[in-house]
Amino acid sequence: MKKYAIGVDIGGTTVKLGLFDQDGGVLEKWEIPTVKENNGSGILPDIAVSIKKQLASMNIGESDIEGVGIGAPGPVDAEGTIYRAVNLGWDVFNIPKALNAYLNLPVKAANDANAAAFGEMWQGGGKGHMNLVAVTLGTGVGGGIIVNGSILTGATGAGGEIGHIHIEDTEPEACGCGNHGCLEQYASATGVVRLAKRHLQQDRQPSVLRDQKLSAKAVWDAVKAGDQVAIRIAQQFGDYLGKGLAAVAAVANPEVFVIGGGVSKAGEVLFAYIRPAYEKYAFHGCRNAEFALATLGNDAGIFGAAGLILN
Amino acid sequence: MKKYAIGVDIGGTTVKLGLFDQDGGVLEKWEIPTVKENNGSGILPDIAVSIKKQLASMNIGESDIEGVGIGAPGPVDAEGTIYRAVNLGWDVFNIPKALNAYLNLPVKAANDANAAAFGEMWQGGGKGHMNLVAVTLGTGVGGGIIVNGSILTGATGAGGEIGHIHIEDTEPEACGCGNHGCLEQYASATGVVRLAKRHLQQDRQPSVLRDQKLSAKAVWDAVKAGDQVAIRIAQQFGDYLGKGLAAVAAVANPEVFVIGGGVSKAGEVLFAYIRPAYEKYAFHGCRNAEFALATLGNDAGIFGAAGLILN
Repeated sequence: MKKYAIGVDIGGTTVKLGLFDQDGGVLEKWEIPTVKENNGSGILPDIAVSIKKQLASMNIGESDIEGVGIGAPGPVDAEGTIYRAVNLGWDVFNIPKALNAYLNLPVKAANDANAAAFGEMWQGGGKGHMNLVAVTLGTGVGGGIIVNGSILTGATGAGGEIGHIHIEDTEPEACGCGNHGCLEQYASATGVVRLAKRHLQQDRQPSVLRDQKLSAKAVWDAVKAGDQVAIRIAQQFGDYLGKGLAAVAAVANPEVFVIGGGVSKAGEVLFAYIRPAYEKYAFHGCRNAEFALATLGNDAGIFGAAGLILN
Repeated sequence: MKKYAIGVDIGGTTVKLGLFDQDGGVLEKWEIPTVKENNGSGILPDIAVSIKKQLASMNIGESDIEGVGIGAPGPVDAEGTIYRAVNLGWDVFNIPKALNAYLNLPVKAANDANAAAFGEMWQGGGKGHMNLVAVTLGTGVGGGIIVNGSILTGATGAGGEIGHIHIEDTEPEACGCGNHGCLEQYASATGVVRLAKRHLQQDRQPSVLRDQKLSAKAVWDAVKAGDQVAIRIAQQFGDYLGKGLAAVAAVANPEVFVIGGGVSKAGEVLFAYIRPAYEKYAFHGCRNAEFALATLGNDAGIFGAAGLILN
């Protein structure tokens, strides 16, 4: 048995890397910039160079490394082929084969949200569960679905794209994906702000939210302070998200939903608004699913990527 | 390698059984009544007796049987434990262990809709695909999801219960499950009739549907004959089903949807109404999923049950 594995999480501005031991402990974390020139053709060579440098500096031989896991921001199929990553300039190619041109180690690749879900299952808020749905409430709404301990990749790597479940028939504005009424339009950080703006326009009641720059954090802080308008915003957020997760449950029937991303910093208060709506919309066979907070934060991706190798 | 496997599909009135060869060919099909007295405690013993009789009559030894697959009408987990089957009077127990008291052969069990989905993948309309969603448009709307060639069972056997995805916020009537606005309320055979009744009340236009007993078949026959009211009913049916399947796709990202059940007897004309709605609501990464008709009909369950043993 090799001693270590490396987890890599490729983001739009930085690549996060981590060296993990067999028990899932992270021994070292570091970052390099994501160089997107020439359609991101330097990203994988940069990763190879950085890994070699890091290992040399720690006096670890490549022969001690079981493999490298990669999380990438685009649809990735079960063989590690990515189907475009717009943020990186990447077209369609096989990530393990491409990285092997620069680094002779076993490589596995997954979509970054799926890798993060895998990380939360392995060492995070979903530890101990083999069937979970990770929900990332950030700029958008991302998802990752773990079935019997494996990532649900789907036919074209779009498994778990739960932010684009249609949830509202009357939405006039378009989602980033071009559709109207996607879950992401209400449950992301920007979605919470949109809901808040609409409520503040329609609702005559006083609210602390009228006197400050709107953000998801401001809304949840106001909820915690008992602001009635903020509470109604939270109820609508919860209704949308609960409805969307009930649809997810009717398909995947998870043991637990692990909620992460910026919006989840509000903490357990979220569940007071999500759970009643979830229970209202969910099929009775799925109604007992648990809700947990993600615990790995921005490291979920490198944990999950390393976990692809170590599990 | 053993020569044969047996597939069993337990329904509310009859139990279907089939003897299959290793290539998935069905050599013999037969049925016995489902005896529901005493909370269905005689069902598994009856199945064991019937299998022994059938094998004896064909001069086949139990030693030539690789195993028995069972499809049962309730949530069944990955170990074959059923969590109640209301139609049979069954409570919670492990089906393989229970059947083994009467029949000493390897047993696997699955939910009947999931078994049917597996059958359609193995020998039916989804042959050649490893990621598919089977949709049964019958009295209700059932679903079965195959991920990488395996049934998505879920935490409590409720994986693929897609008939209970919430799809309509304004539905005044309750679904059989107790919720309001489930996909099943619009896309099942009874759902099509409900949509038809509502349209015929609101729509003043003449229609052949006004002069006959309403049924899903009558609606689709009228659609094929160019009846404008029927076409509007089909459009609404397609909109609901397309929206629901787009939600399923955002989770499971299948290669193909295999549509079966009584409503699917209408044939390819269904796709003219489902596909445009699906493409409207689906995330772009899932939009290319194919649509196919189920081909195994009422035998999908025994095929899939045998397939659990032979795959």
